[in-house]
Amino acid sequence: MIYLDWAASALPDLNLIKEANNISGKYYANPSAVHKPGLEAQTFLNECRKNISGLIGCSEKEIIFTSGGTESNNIVINSIIKYTGKNHKTIPHVIISSLEHDSVYIPAKGLSDLGIEVSFANAEKSGFISPKSIKSLLKDNTRLICVILTSNETGAVQPLADIVKIADEHSKRTGKRIIVHADAVQTFGKIEFNPYELGIDTASLSAHKIGGLRGVGALFVKKGCIIRPLYTGGSQEMGLRPGTENLAGVYCLSLICAKVLPELKNNYDKARTIMSKLIEELSLINNAVFIPEQRLKEPDTFSPYILKISFPPIPGEVLVRVLQDRGICISTGSACASRKKNKQRALLSMGISSETAYSSVRISPGHTTTMEDIKNFIKILKEELTILKRVTGI
Amino acid sequence: MIYLDWAASALPDLNLIKEANNISGKYYANPSAVHKPGLEAQTFLNECRKNISGLIGCSEKEIIFTSGGTESNNIVINSIIKYTGKNHKTIPHVIISSLEHDSVYIPAKGLSDLGIEVSFANAEKSGFISPKSIKSLLKDNTRLICVILTSNETGAVQPLADIVKIADEHSKRTGKRIIVHADAVQTFGKIEFNPYELGIDTASLSAHKIGGLRGVGALFVKKGCIIRPLYTGGSQEMGLRPGTENLAGVYCLSLICAKVLPELKNNYDKARTIMSKLIEELSLINNAVFIPEQRLKEPDTFSPYILKISFPPIPGEVLVRVLQDRGICISTGSACASRKKNKQRALLSMGISSETAYSSVRISPGHTTTMEDIKNFIKILKEELTILKRVTGI
Repeated sequence: MIYLDWAASALPDLNLIKEANNISGKYYANPSAVHKPGLEAQTFLNECRKNISGLIGCSEKEIIFTSGGTESNNIVINSIIKYTGKNHKTIPHVIISSLEHDSVYIPAKGLSDLGIEVSFANAEKSGFISPKSIKSLLKDNTRLICVILTSNETGAVQPLADIVKIADEHSKRTGKRIIVHADAVQTFGKIEFNPYELGIDTASLSAHKIGGLRGVGALFVKKGCIIRPLYTGGSQEMGLRPGTENLAGVYCLSLICAKVLPELKNNYDKARTIMSKLIEELSLINNAVFIPEQRLKEPDTFSPYILKISFPPIPGEVLVRVLQDRGICISTGSACASRKKNKQRALLSMGISSETAYSSVRISPGHTTTMEDIKNFIKILKEELTILKRVTGI
Repeated sequence: MIYLDWAASALPDLNLIKEANNISGKYYANPSAVHKPGLEAQTFLNECRKNISGLIGCSEKEIIFTSGGTESNNIVINSIIKYTGKNHKTIPHVIISSLEHDSVYIPAKGLSDLGIEVSFANAEKSGFISPKSIKSLLKDNTRLICVILTSNETGAVQPLADIVKIADEHSKRTGKRIIVHADAVQTFGKIEFNPYELGIDTASLSAHKIGGLRGVGALFVKKGCIIRPLYTGGSQEMGLRPGTENLAGVYCLSLICAKVLPELKNNYDKARTIMSKLIEELSLINNAVFIPEQRLKEPDTFSPYILKISFPPIPGEVLVRVLQDRGICISTGSACASRKKNKQRALLSMGISSETAYSSVRISPGHTTTMEDIKNFIKILKEELTILKRVTGI
């Protein structure tokens, strides 16, 4: 089995998961209970928060634990609803990049159903959202800009720092704050990430994309940035996320961060070497179309953990299935969109042709992927492409 | 340590948690991925769903996995927002019992901020919501009734079946469906629970209240009952709850259900014996006020897992803290409300005096609680009450 779908879910770190679950027995009480085991659970939760924020390089009060990236994204986007209603003279305006994951794109469309103005910034054919296109969409009533930090489809690392600068300049003129949100799910733990350096206000993080448990994630909320909770109940997580805290999940995230973040640069360099080899080998295959083609010119502006490529006219789904039978796991793109019709929405927004988009597959190595894996993958891929071409007569 | 705060969080079943986490390695892929490990994870998820629904006695398509009781409650309540907006002539009306947990009560108040009509049905002094009081509040535009199945404060098991009957009769007259929602978090796994027999449309369930992992729960949604998702993204959980599924958490819930549900009657009988002894001993203590006093007359209409009692004028928080120092864990009530000002809201709505309410504590045994625990608890409680009375001069 060669697993090249880490962007959908990383291979779990079983030792850390085991260690994390051991604390279920030690800190069994409800962290909101005021008796001793409750207070101990609360203290432990906040130690995890401190460890994680320390490793990220932000303040512990800026980390809110959630059930994952999807919920984190939804919190920020739905928070804009607070600017509507009879107490608000102007309808808020939101800018969403065309590259967003469904957990940003679909709630944003939901905002427009509520009468909120939503503009979509299309990516260029290079795979990037140009800061200029964001600038051209800004209005006096713009309250939120969402740009995915690393595209989950192409791996393109978006120019968030430049987008923040443009938003800040605009804010200075209008006197109204604009929240710049980054879906950092494919960045966190993989590519250097400091929310202060980027200047972003909020960022979504996920545990299972870096070896932690499914069902837990976090939201970075910069001090002073006011976010409304997505739903209500208890006053957990500074009032931003109610419900009894998932202590084992949070502890596991803290353990994963302690393992992965200090090793990030090393892992990144290794991944870059592997990705270079992968690209080199793939570029020798006839008809291989890199998405975007820019990838070959400026590989370092892309994540070394995600590659999108197409072998038209072979449908991506067919390729995924024949490779699966040979023990290789790749995907056509976002797992969350795998059962949807418009699953290549992000690629089409870049101006990629429909045939190329629907022929595309995502290859996503992880930190245990070896050169041997890549060699075997390429070998099997070539064999299967040859068979497919023969069978389909292309 | 005598742990009597199971209603806040049950002592975890460490063996099942360990077993559940072992599958993190086996079913590591994203259940939405279309390759083999993804499909295997999806199949396994649905096997868990089938096991749980089979044990509850409902259809597997009626179980939606969530991050817990708070989220499940919020999904149903916020779903009513779909009846607002320019396409709807009438504003919807919602009836909420005064006994609801904060995760029902606060989102319901949020509905009223959106212009939705919200009526609160006050509990009687007996601790029960009378079906008549619900009937008197019904309107042509009533769309939702929320009544907690077992009060998390007093343990009173509410007459949901009668409330459903009243709602159904009203629906027949108006031709408009009313969703009857039961927060069943303190019922599920503890007291016999069949959603079909009750006739309810939706019910919230939680894993960590019965020994499972924190961060996972479920929502029962009766076939034909249309609920809008609380937030959006991927099409997981039949489109009702997006985000990569928490497979280990769900599997753990399935294991807990398989252990607890077939043993429910036995456990219930044991708990009833323990609760009878507890009540018998407590009633010998001077000044002990059972909340409600009804508890002594009709013990079987209350959960044997929750008891609310007051020793006025000793503040509940003081009693919790002195007992904690003696190795006993009880609470003043809902952990989710422990840091809030109006934490005795439910008791006050029953007409309990403010002094009695703020002197109250919740004693919540579980299935490992022994007669010996109760004997020791009573002994220490008596000692501490004597000291408190001497110190405070009461």
